[in-house]
Amino acid sequence: MAKDFSTREENYSKWYNDIVQRAGLAENSAVRGCMVIKPYGYAIWEKMQAALDKMFKDTGHSNAYFPIFIPKSFFSKEAAHVEGFAKECAVVTHYRLKNDPDGKGIVVDEDAKLEEELIVRPTSETIIWDTYRNWVQSYRDLPILINQWANVVRWEMRTRMFLRTAEFLWQEGHTAHATREEAVEETERMLDVYADFAENFMAIPVLKGTKSANERFAGAVETYCIEALMQDGKALQAGTSHFLGQNFAKAFDVKFASQEGTLEHVWATSWGVSTRLVGALIMAHSDDHGLVLPPKLAPNQVVIVPIYKSADQQNLVVEKAREIQRQLQKAGISVKLDDRDTYKPGWKFNEYEFKGVPVRIAIGPRDVENGTLELARRDTLQKEIIQMKGIEQTIEKMLNDIQENLYRKALEFRERSTYKADTWDEFIDILDNKGGFILAHWDGTAETEQKIKEETKATIRLIPLNNIPEEGKCIFTGKPSSQRVVFARAY
Amino acid sequence: MAKDFSTREENYSKWYNDIVQRAGLAENSAVRGCMVIKPYGYAIWEKMQAALDKMFKDTGHSNAYFPIFIPKSFFSKEAAHVEGFAKECAVVTHYRLKNDPDGKGIVVDEDAKLEEELIVRPTSETIIWDTYRNWVQSYRDLPILINQWANVVRWEMRTRMFLRTAEFLWQEGHTAHATREEAVEETERMLDVYADFAENFMAIPVLKGTKSANERFAGAVETYCIEALMQDGKALQAGTSHFLGQNFAKAFDVKFASQEGTLEHVWATSWGVSTRLVGALIMAHSDDHGLVLPPKLAPNQVVIVPIYKSADQQNLVVEKAREIQRQLQKAGISVKLDDRDTYKPGWKFNEYEFKGVPVRIAIGPRDVENGTLELARRDTLQKEIIQMKGIEQTIEKMLNDIQENLYRKALEFRERSTYKADTWDEFIDILDNKGGFILAHWDGTAETEQKIKEETKATIRLIPLNNIPEEGKCIFTGKPSSQRVVFARAY
Repeated sequence: MAKDFSTREENYSKWYNDIVQRAGLAENSAVRGCMVIKPYGYAIWEKMQAALDKMFKDTGHSNAYFPIFIPKSFFSKEAAHVEGFAKECAVVTHYRLKNDPDGKGIVVDEDAKLEEELIVRPTSETIIWDTYRNWVQSYRDLPILINQWANVVRWEMRTRMFLRTAEFLWQEGHTAHATREEAVEETERMLDVYADFAENFMAIPVLKGTKSANERFAGAVETYCIEALMQDGKALQAGTSHFLGQNFAKAFDVKFASQEGTLEHVWATSWGVSTRLVGALIMAHSDDHGLVLPPKLAPNQVVIVPIYKSADQQNLVVEKAREIQRQLQKAGISVKLDDRDTYKPGWKFNEYEFKGVPVRIAIGPRDVENGTLELARRDTLQKEIIQMKGIEQTIEKMLNDIQENLYRKALEFRERSTYKADTWDEFIDILDNKGGFILAHWDGTAETEQKIKEETKATIRLIPLNNIPEEGKCIFTGKPSSQRVVFARAY
Repeated sequence: MAKDFSTREENYSKWYNDIVQRAGLAENSAVRGCMVIKPYGYAIWEKMQAALDKMFKDTGHSNAYFPIFIPKSFFSKEAAHVEGFAKECAVVTHYRLKNDPDGKGIVVDEDAKLEEELIVRPTSETIIWDTYRNWVQSYRDLPILINQWANVVRWEMRTRMFLRTAEFLWQEGHTAHATREEAVEETERMLDVYADFAENFMAIPVLKGTKSANERFAGAVETYCIEALMQDGKALQAGTSHFLGQNFAKAFDVKFASQEGTLEHVWATSWGVSTRLVGALIMAHSDDHGLVLPPKLAPNQVVIVPIYKSADQQNLVVEKAREIQRQLQKAGISVKLDDRDTYKPGWKFNEYEFKGVPVRIAIGPRDVENGTLELARRDTLQKEIIQMKGIEQTIEKMLNDIQENLYRKALEFRERSTYKADTWDEFIDILDNKGGFILAHWDGTAETEQKIKEETKATIRLIPLNNIPEEGKCIFTGKPSSQRVVFARAY
């Protein structure tokens, strides 16, 4: 049990960083705010990508790729968008370096100044809608259902690995439609895809809803989101899906001839999730023994550790371990066999526990003799001796159990961390002493929301979809309200 | 047969651009030198990625991700590298924009100047070796076998879609080893992986060899490469694998404690292929009817076009077409059914022929009645009527035939386009009138190579692996030479 490692109780923030670093997920790089995603962390992201990519394709989308650079002037074309995105960003001003005349390395060649600066994309609506203009003439060219896997850069001042970094990896869907209804339907469909992914792959329950105007994507008519709750009671936005109306079509002059022969602006959506989800995954399930991964996203679902003393025993045990590995792999289970001589079994047990491998199999000479194995579950830390026979079924069942158990635990946590507040005092008390989601009345104004944020750092995470109308009074102003919204402090 | 479309004979360069654009593979973007990779082009790249990624993992590599930005000073650390890479590149100098005080959109905020400029990576050796320094202490930390899928930027002056663009997508492998032997072995292993991929997936025969010093990667001790021949007789470098010696380990101070207890610099390799391969694929196989794709990399291996007049016929035919689609999909074949009402069969035939779909199935009411189908092969343009029964086997066999036929055609073309030249006149004659690979003697000096390049634009593409020693005289200087090397004009 890693003793030089913080518990959640002691220091939640350090606990998170310790897991990220010691489990080999990521580290800070030499470039301010940018991280190196290490192989184990990247393998989790690859699992996420594979699952999401399949869901996107199953809903009719294709991948494409647009330039990383966006001409500065593009940002000015959509009024709200420029305010939201064109500020803290990486600006390319030159295209050449030269040897320093004083012999001190290399310097920027001032003769190679760009006529117009290029922005490293913080998001791609502008360059994509500039492109779509040439793709759309008639209703027959619609819908366009495109997704892009890419890196983006936002010059964040305070960064945190996976949760907020200057460069991050993400996917951004950008679709174009003939009607408002179709675009709204697409926006909601992709929100459902994200919720499905969060719950069924990440084992994280999420609330679905829309953002208040303050929290809306810059350029969107409506922003839908999914919100998850972390173990410290803070919310984490795990995905957004935007109905963009005709804003970008108007800004970039994208029109189509309708079936009726009229010329109309195209309707748009965009939606994205990022490597931030890896941060959410870590914080949702991990414990004071390290990372805990849901089997559906674990790079290795099972690790086998052979135990032996003599060379004879080693041969016997490792051979059996290989046989079991093959058997499990045949059943579609990902299995690592760690037969390295350079590390002891105890070290390996700690290592894979810390790295959150869902199931550990230990096998020694006695096991080979008896046809048994020792299984250890990462989520409950329980061990049991089982029969080798029927190992595939045993492991498959255990992996399913773990996946479900993690979801159930996270759901129970969220349920007991969701409160109603009817007064300002209650609201403050919950925020300061409990954390979690707070259902409270709000007068519906941006001004009130802003003041609540300034006083408490809590924001409206979302207005739940299909919210139940309820008469009440705003917790801050006392003005009438017709529904509760969800507040929380958030990542 | 697309009449407003150039043939290879008329204008090879325009023919290439026409295919890229009209087949929906890519287009130029609003950003100088950067392309938009459209869904159909990106789908080919995804197929390439999937195949290569599996090959990398099967040879023990993991993926990871390093920052897109590299501090300027990093480039100065490896002397040869800075000359090769730190010149034409995108330089980030500022991290903020602000509203123009004159109200004309947004401008760079001069207060937000970076202390040290950041370069958008043209390749990642420097940032990766700066990172590896902290990963390696002992021989037990080696080897490091990492690959990265990423975008890179090189400020090319003359660009051409896929073949040479300012931004392109690629993979770059970066490995670290305890011994020279192991690093050389890795370099050669990855060259073999690339050759295997080119021949067995892309259906393009390649020569394997090493580069002359002039053409070597900046910072490498030895550059291995595979070279393919395009239909216009120009060579295309399709992949490189570099043995970097201890150059980067020395530049970034990466040492390890060996098993014997000594402190040694680490040995390195790097290797990469890029979206350029899509360009190679187009140019290797396509014809005057448009794109031709090898089945293993075709986004759709089969397209089904239903043919009908009445609504009754439509129901009957489309239903049967769906059944066949399901049957083929079950057998692992990717099949598109184009049952759109908005386009006529003739238009669809042209469309999929132009897009290079390997096999087209046409099905009409008579076919449903007779249990027959019409198959058309894209590579030979041959049509035949076949029995619906056993369709999976028929199509599988045809796809294999096409894959083999494309490779055989490309190999025959290369063989008849490979010449020996023993005099300068012969050399010039072949270059100007035939093109292709020229096996010729060279005196081994960089100076002669450079002069030949200046006079003819031909370069040494490679020195073949396991080259047969042969006494001769340099075609340019007449000085003695012990082997022939491969010259060509190249992309």
